[in-house]
Amino acid sequence: MKRHRKVPQKASGRFIVIEGGDGTGKSTLLNKIEHALKARAIQCVRTREPGGTPLAEEIRELILAHQRPGYEIDAKTELLLYEAARAHHVRNVIRPHLAAGTTVLCDRFTYSSIAYQGAARGLGEKTVAILNSIATEGLEPDLVIVLDLATKQAKARRSLRGAANRLDIEPDSFHEKVRRAFLKLAKANPRRCVVLDASLDPDTVFARLLALKPWKRLF
Amino acid sequence: MKRHRKVPQKASGRFIVIEGGDGTGKSTLLNKIEHALKARAIQCVRTREPGGTPLAEEIRELILAHQRPGYEIDAKTELLLYEAARAHHVRNVIRPHLAAGTTVLCDRFTYSSIAYQGAARGLGEKTVAILNSIATEGLEPDLVIVLDLATKQAKARRSLRGAANRLDIEPDSFHEKVRRAFLKLAKANPRRCVVLDASLDPDTVFARLLALKPWKRLF
Repeated sequence: MKRHRKVPQKASGRFIVIEGGDGTGKSTLLNKIEHALKARAIQCVRTREPGGTPLAEEIRELILAHQRPGYEIDAKTELLLYEAARAHHVRNVIRPHLAAGTTVLCDRFTYSSIAYQGAARGLGEKTVAILNSIATEGLEPDLVIVLDLATKQAKARRSLRGAANRLDIEPDSFHEKVRRAFLKLAKANPRRCVVLDASLDPDTVFARLLALKPWKRLF
Repeated sequence: MKRHRKVPQKASGRFIVIEGGDGTGKSTLLNKIEHALKARAIQCVRTREPGGTPLAEEIRELILAHQRPGYEIDAKTELLLYEAARAHHVRNVIRPHLAAGTTVLCDRFTYSSIAYQGAARGLGEKTVAILNSIATEGLEPDLVIVLDLATKQAKARRSLRGAANRLDIEPDSFHEKVRRAFLKLAKANPRRCVVLDASLDPDTVFARLLALKPWKRLF
């Protein structure tokens, strides 16, 4: 059976997700996208995962608080907490905004769970995909932008930024798995995903995005 | 293919779960079971869901805090939080005790999620069963004791107890769905489950349990 893609209704905003490892330039690119859309009078909101609602931010804090030695959360518990935060975020922020015609720009979404918990932490990409589908009730982004950067380069950028992060203690092999999982997801969903070379300067990355078909189809 | 039930190894404790609506006498029966096992020098620990680890208790608190008007958690988010708490509880409390040869007595477990979130809140018993299996990594109780009581009688007992509970605001039809779901689960798993008439006095309920085959097989 051929599956027909639903054409977004006039009243529905676009759902844009940006994915990629830490240090790949997600925030910088989101700034540029938000600026460009606002300049074209396209109403948009910016949000993030994990988080995006007061409850989801509390869940995020709970996870961070339990990163201290002796309080570690195992990967499975962490994943289920992220999915709970996601369910709340989708229901209370993403869906209502899309229904109101507002474009939603989201820093990380379901692919991050597949890459980090499914691939890198070894919980299995299929298990995570099942949980994603339960948490989102099938909501999929209209566009997923994957920022791709060599593991060593991303590491160098994170150390320049000075913001040490709990993922920085992970070995390069962990970040390699994350990177490969993002690329695999993008390859499996070519209509919805674009991969951008994050080693380029931010203006070039943004210019390349604007030239791509999946972007031009939406805006 | 015939599935062989694994005979518990000498080193493994028994995993006993007690299920049923609020006001059916779960705590009272657990007290009697704990007392009887200790009298027979069977090492056991008592735990509960949601909760059972510091993190899981924090998750429980988070859910309760968000029951206030204006802060409601939807059923899906609540379910995923319960499953996160369960994953942590299974990994950090239930499995280690069982492996050490200690019998675990648990007040509520996976069937409660199926009955409350799956059946009564309408999330679907299959969806909840999938989440249960991900959270527990397939761990099943050796014995599930279902305390069965007519909805009106349970309600009367709860009001006598004076401890108003957020489930008390639910209509009788909600509690009927919970009751029917527990009975259906017990019927579908006759080797693992026993149903006890909770309208009888506590000593009679306990005596009946001790006379049942699934109990005698274990102790």
